[in-house]
Amino acid sequence: MMSSRIFKKRKSIKQVEESNELAPKFDKNGLIPVVTTDFKTSEILMQGYMNEEALKKTIKIGEAVYYSRSRKSLWHKGKISGFVQKIKEILIDDDQDCVWLKVKVLGGASCHVGYKSCFYRSLQNITEDGVELKFTENEKVFDPEVVYPGIENPTKL
Amino acid sequence: MMSSRIFKKRKSIKQVEESNELAPKFDKNGLIPVVTTDFKTSEILMQGYMNEEALKKTIKIGEAVYYSRSRKSLWHKGKISGFVQKIKEILIDDDQDCVWLKVKVLGGASCHVGYKSCFYRSLQNITEDGVELKFTENEKVFDPEVVYPGIENPTKL
Repeated sequence: MMSSRIFKKRKSIKQVEESNELAPKFDKNGLIPVVTTDFKTSEILMQGYMNEEALKKTIKIGEAVYYSRSRKSLWHKGKISGFVQKIKEILIDDDQDCVWLKVKVLGGASCHVGYKSCFYRSLQNITEDGVELKFTENEKVFDPEVVYPGIENPTKL
Repeated sequence: MMSSRIFKKRKSIKQVEESNELAPKFDKNGLIPVVTTDFKTSEILMQGYMNEEALKKTIKIGEAVYYSRSRKSLWHKGKISGFVQKIKEILIDDDQDCVWLKVKVLGGASCHVGYKSCFYRSLQNITEDGVELKFTENEKVFDPEVVYPGIENPTKL
């Protein structure tokens, strides 16, 4: 069992910003945002959240474990799909309220829609009247209906 | 004035995930998380938030405008420091609840502590007993006391 001392108490701005102590800030829902990139291409794959337990588990097992806000539970990424994210590096930002994971994705995809990255659309043709999303990935890596049979889509309106 | 029609109403999962309509989801505080990377190096510079007005303004003026949760107001990045973020590309994720900005930073820094990126520390020496943060940037790009004289540090404990 990893010690709970892995997270230090937040004592001062200097400690948080300029020391070598890990003192992450979880918001009032107990969550910290996480940005995950491909360690080779640097592409952003997804943005998610972790609670304390998820961050500790990620550090301990070396695979990305998020907190699913829709399912209200820990979410070991890839447990269903096989697209496990192997941790290559974990960084934290200046005020320690955001985590950056650099990962290697087994199977090559991170997005439940089937694309490699969740960010597969870019804003184009911006005018006074509107904007159009253009797909930046042309083909899906996998078919979600095959990989996630009968599983509820996590996207909420 | 940019039309409010720039954001479409969220009608279906298919529309949100697979169409070319921009229908961003703002959370119950009216915010959407934003990840900002250097368009050349792909390094993550910072993670912030936008409200509807900030996202519209960012799209309109081509410079990053965030919403400051500590100051509770729009935050045109670089207005004080000169480190304006020129927008090169804007992407949105699958369920449209996160924005990715690719930017060129005038002056080369994005972090109020003085570093190029807010993510200047990496988790190292992970053991059962703890973890150490190691600095990944050796020198500050600027001196915060010169650039932000008398301005309150945005980091909150």
